[in-house]
This record gives sequence, structure tokens and C-alpha cells, in this order.
Amino acid sequence: MKSIEWINGKVRIIDQTRLPENLVFLEIDDYIELCDAIKRLRVRGAPAIGIAGAFGVVLGIKKMNEEKFKINDYVSEVIKNIRSIRPTAKNLFWALDRMYNKLSAFSGESMEKVKEEILKEALDIYREDEEISRKISENGSEMIKDECSILTHCNTGFLVTAGIGTALGIVYKAVEKGKKVKVYADETRPLLQGARLTAWELKSKGIDVTLICDSSAAFLMKKGLIDCIIVGADRIASNGDTANKIGTYNLSVLADKHNIPFYIAAPHSTFDFSIETGDEIPIEERKPEEVSMGFGKRIAPEDIDIFNPAFDITPNNLITAFITEEGIYYPPYGNWKNLKKS
Amino acid sequence: MKSIEWINGKVRIIDQTRLPENLVFLEIDDYIELCDAIKRLRVRGAPAIGIAGAFGVVLGIKKMNEEKFKINDYVSEVIKNIRSIRPTAKNLFWALDRMYNKLSAFSGESMEKVKEEILKEALDIYREDEEISRKISENGSEMIKDECSILTHCNTGFLVTAGIGTALGIVYKAVEKGKKVKVYADETRPLLQGARLTAWELKSKGIDVTLICDSSAAFLMKKGLIDCIIVGADRIASNGDTANKIGTYNLSVLADKHNIPFYIAAPHSTFDFSIETGDEIPIEERKPEEVSMGFGKRIAPEDIDIFNPAFDITPNNLITAFITEEGIYYPPYGNWKNLKKS
Repeated sequence: MKSIEWINGKVRIIDQTRLPENLVFLEIDDYIELCDAIKRLRVRGAPAIGIAGAFGVVLGIKKMNEEKFKINDYVSEVIKNIRSIRPTAKNLFWALDRMYNKLSAFSGESMEKVKEEILKEALDIYREDEEISRKISENGSEMIKDECSILTHCNTGFLVTAGIGTALGIVYKAVEKGKKVKVYADETRPLLQGARLTAWELKSKGIDVTLICDSSAAFLMKKGLIDCIIVGADRIASNGDTANKIGTYNLSVLADKHNIPFYIAAPHSTFDFSIETGDEIPIEERKPEEVSMGFGKRIAPEDIDIFNPAFDITPNNLITAFITEEGIYYPPYGNWKNLKKS
Repeated sequence: MKSIEWINGKVRIIDQTRLPENLVFLEIDDYIELCDAIKRLRVRGAPAIGIAGAFGVVLGIKKMNEEKFKINDYVSEVIKNIRSIRPTAKNLFWALDRMYNKLSAFSGESMEKVKEEILKEALDIYREDEEISRKISENGSEMIKDECSILTHCNTGFLVTAGIGTALGIVYKAVEKGKKVKVYADETRPLLQGARLTAWELKSKGIDVTLICDSSAAFLMKKGLIDCIIVGADRIASNGDTANKIGTYNLSVLADKHNIPFYIAAPHSTFDFSIETGDEIPIEERKPEEVSMGFGKRIAPEDIDIFNPAFDITPNNLITAFITEEGIYYPPYGNWKNLKKS
């Protein structure tokens, strides 16, 4: 089961907003519709929205009728529209930059060829992501001890990559290697990706998982129930400061207090070497209704003020290591040489 | 508006499970029904369940037909049943002990007189609680600076006392004194007392309140948006270790990390001098459905394991001060002399 795929000229996604109650696949052949799906989090997770963005460019270009290709206003608009959907995750910009560079190289070529080549590029991104996710999982699984209890936040498994995932990929791989792993999944308010998606993923793969409210994490750590924390990332600055789902910074402070290793699992496309620190990462604020109406029922008075940041920044000094497809990076952070090449 | 009152031989409570959508009053004249209301959190909050427990004894005794009163099996059972409903909050046991002592003193008296006296004792507890809450609020309000931004967790206002509240009482009193106060309210998963009750209370009283998800608190602290944290308590050990709503320990660690004062506001009835440390406080675990089914919609796969502790323990070294009706207590904790007298 793939959370995102290119099938017969369409992007097929699992509608993640319908899980765990309904497993619904959507087939999308219009880039505006795909933008909407990204915006509504039908497809979500940093690597997956990178892939979705690349396919979005393919769908956008498909509509062009010119004989010879060039980057005109329409092409610029397609890329700009996709780029503007979500501001925090680097992977989307990374994928769009790569697609744009490919397009730039084909100026003057026949439209037909460009459509072919650009699809090929998107499928390359897709297949590379599958392989990257495999390597992250392999590298990370070596760090997991037998009889290990892992706390995770949000969702980072096969729903967010072309492969088996980032942080959850590590869990899958460790279990495949015969290690006994127990996962505690933060429910991850407001949109409950932990309860709806991580619990569902892990359970569907037979992994021992226990769901907790986000605010219980400290209690578990104090009780000695957590051996390590592994989460994904939406953007990593040059100095290692990391944007991830709101609540991640919270966990990193708690991990530090309880001497629990805190790992970030992410592909090279999440790193943003154009910025020095996390202060430069824009934090997406989302609709108050995600908080007040998220459970199918109003849970707060009407017209109440609500502050709903979707991400936070974990400073580099609270991160024990980064687990990437190129290996493990330990502090001091800054020398990412193998990653920089890619 | 009172969250709990004795009216015409009945206990009248606001059904807190129906807020904020519906303001429903329940009139209860049967102690078993009252036990059920406490269990289902129709009446909740440490001071309020102490009061409810005292009224429960009155309702239980009312059914006795003997001519002369003595503590028989029925009386023991009434008290035992009420005592067993919720294990963490000290106030319930404190109120029941006080009612039991009163009853003990009336052995051999006419049933009619005992019924009168025991109601008088419960009403004394009620009125004293009103006054205690006023004093806590007065004492605490002196510590609040003008232009202060306060983070709170769970609900500690007029819904949980006979008066204006503990932690929220301090907010009300500070505002009454003309101080400009902004409150950030943690929504407080799983039962959302912050979203449903605190936001509702504060809004109904015209206080500037912003609702956040529990996991956003760290982000706000890092941004410098929080000047202090004030919460209530369910039980305080001799050394100052404090049981309160799950997520409180989390906040205390974050407060320490960000150098933000962390205050506990509670009456003497919350202190348990029979135990030395928080390790001796039993933590109530509640039904998994509070997490998975809390708001009219299933949000996690069926049959998923869920760990749902209702409270956690904040260690004394993370508490800046205790705000009580007898004054403010600073570290080192242990000398609670004015409180011990009561």
C-alpha cells in the first residue's frame, strides 16, 4: 500500500484526513485539485508533500498546448501556486526547485518531450525517496537496542514517504531485524496524526503501540518507560535547528531533563542550507477550527481566541543525532558534507 | 452562578460534562446518584469534589430511619462508597474524614438532630471553602504584576470551588484590582477542561483568554509570551510534591527550562501530611475511551492500547511557591505550620 503513487497519468493518494475510519484513495489529474489536497492535509508529511509537489508540476505542465516548451507565465504560476501552499516544510521547495531546474534545461524542446522528461524527473524523485527512506531506516535501526521503548510524535511512516517512512521506518526495520520494540505514540493535537495515522500504521503492521495524550509524555519519561525519542522533521537549518510538528520542542526539553536520547530522522531534502538557524524558518499558523472543532464536535466556546501554530523549532543543542540516508550526524552540527553534495 | 449548592434538601450542580454547549443544572437527592456524578466528572475539581463528598454523606444519612444514631454498617458503607470514587484528590478524603469525625461525636443522639448537625457541618465546609477561595485569590493576586501573561492548565475557577476558584480565582481578583491580565489556557487533553471549562469561564467573565493545544505551551514559553504559570492541585505531599491534572509535570519542566515562575494555588484540604513524598500518591487511570472517543467521534483505531493517567506528580523542586489561604509558601518546603493547624 502506497500513500502516494503515479498511476495512469494521475496522482493516486490515500486521503489521510479520512483515516483511521475509512481507507479512501483519491485519483487526481488536476494540479489545482492537488494543491487543495496538500492544503487540506489529504496528503501530508514533509517527504510526501515534496513528491506531491513534483507530481503537481507534471499535472500543471500536462495542460500546456504550445509546440515548443519555455518557462512562461503559466509555468511560473503553477510552481508559485504549489510553493505557496505550505510554508514550513523544506521538501516541497526542494522538489519544486529540482523540477524547475529540469524544466529550465528543456527550453525550446518539443512539448511532448518535456512532458515525458518532467514526468521522468518526478518519478525519479519518487523512486529516490523510496530508496532514501530505506537507507534512513537501515541506518536508524542499527541504533535501536533490543527491548527498546520508543516515543514518537506525529506521523512519519509509510504514509509520508514513497517508502517505509523516516522515524517509523526505523521502527519497522528494527522489528524486521528481530528486535523487540515498543512504541508510545503521542496523539499529536490538534489534528491527531499520532492517534489517527501512527497508531493505525503501526497496528496494521503488527507493531506493539500504545497511544498517549501529548501531555502524558513527561509522566512516562519520569517513570523510565521511554528509552529514546525519534521524530521526523519539516525543515533543518544549517546549524541543526529543526522545525517539526508542534509539540516536538516540548519533547526535546523533556528528553533533555530525563537524559533520554532525542533523534531526528530525515532525508537530505529536509535540510535547508540557505538558512543559518531555526529563527529563519517560517512557522505555519493554521485555522482555529482545527483546535475547536477537530473531533467532529465543538469543544470550545464560539468566538474564543485560539493560537494554532503547526510547527515549532527544536534547537540543535537538544538533538542527540540526525539519522539520514547518508549516515548519522552527531554534534557539533554544521559539517553535513555528504548531504551537501546531494 | 454556583457550580455546586445545597438547595431544598438537594445538591444542585452544574453538569460540567455538558459545557460549553449546554448549561445544565442537576438536582440530586440520592447519594448513589451523586457518586455517579462525581465518577463521571459532572462535578469535578479537587475542592468541589470535597464539597460534593460532604453533601453525599448528608444525602446518605438522610435515608436512615433508626431512632438513635450510631455508626453502623450502612454509614460505613456510605462513606466507603464515596471515598472509593476517585483516588487522587485529597480534598475528598479530607471532607469525608471531617464528616466522619462529626458523626462519631453524635453516637447515641437522636437521628433528627444528627441529620441537622451533619448538614450544618457540610454547609460549614461549603462556606469555609468559599472564604478560602477568596483568601487564596487575594493572596495570589498580590503576586500578579500588571500586564501579566499567565499560562494555566485544566480548570480551577468558580466551577471547582464554592467561591471564585483557586488559580483562576487569582486571575479574577487581579483583574478586579485593575491589573491587565492575559490568560493562555491549555486545552487539557483528554477531557478538555481547559477548552470546555476554563475558556468558557474566563470568556463569561470578560477575561482576555487564548486557547492553545497542550503541546504548544513550550513554543509560547520560548517566544517569551508567558510570565508565569499558575495551576491548582489534587494532592500535595509533606515535601511539596504535587499531584495535579496530567500535563502539569510537563509544564513544570518547561517552566524551569525557560525560567518562568511556576505556582500552585490550593487550599489546606489539598495537603496530605500523612505522606512524605509524591511517590505515595496513587494516580488514577481512566478509561481509554476518554482518549479515543472523547468528542463524539472515534479518533483512533479500535482496540488500540491506550494509557490514560489522569494526574501526574510535579516534584517540589520545580515549584516556585504555593499560594494558600494562609499565605504564600516558598522553598524549602516542609514547614507548613499555619496549614497544619487546620
